[in-house]
Amino acid sequence: MRVGQVIKLRPEYAEKYKELHANPWPEIDRMIKQCKIQNYSIYVFDGLLFSYFEYVGDDYEADMAKMAADPKTQEWWELCKPCQQPIDAAGENDWWYNIEEVYHLD
Amino acid sequence: MRVGQVIKLRPEYAEKYKELHANPWPEIDRMIKQCKIQNYSIYVFDGLLFSYFEYVGDDYEADMAKMAADPKTQEWWELCKPCQQPIDAAGENDWWYNIEEVYHLD
Repeated sequence: MRVGQVIKLRPEYAEKYKELHANPWPEIDRMIKQCKIQNYSIYVFDGLLFSYFEYVGDDYEADMAKMAADPKTQEWWELCKPCQQPIDAAGENDWWYNIEEVYHLD
Repeated sequence: MRVGQVIKLRPEYAEKYKELHANPWPEIDRMIKQCKIQNYSIYVFDGLLFSYFEYVGDDYEADMAKMAADPKTQEWWELCKPCQQPIDAAGENDWWYNIEEVYHLD
């Protein structure tokens, strides 16, 4: 399963966000992989973050819940969240917003 | 080599662009692969197209020139180009605009 997502990057936190992600904690990378996410990239353009990843497990909801319950991940998110702002179309409980894939070629 | 790119999608052509890419010509997909591009996805969000692909050849410029010289690809681009508009930051000879990767996890 491929996932594309967007979220706003607050301009005043842009450098901080980039620094964090240039040197991600090993525990964070490890937890992401444990939650069956791979080939995960984040791009930035014009105040918008775009992420692309591939989910290779068989229970996405459960794996996302596992990630959210991890104390180290929570600590990481505490640093990242002030840098980000959900886009207007995101639901009340959403953070990143899933966007529409219009083309794919393996 | 991973590449992330953006370009504007003209609202009045959005449906046409999606239809074209929901049913791409086999010759186009074949030429893309011949030019060593794989795992190529295009997403749309808020008037912006985002593309992600992986280049697995060893001469990107040459492969892009090969693609641009292909008559069927030129025919396809004639249909796609009116749907798109380069972003302001793009160079005079650029179409899609390369964006900055801030994180990657294999």
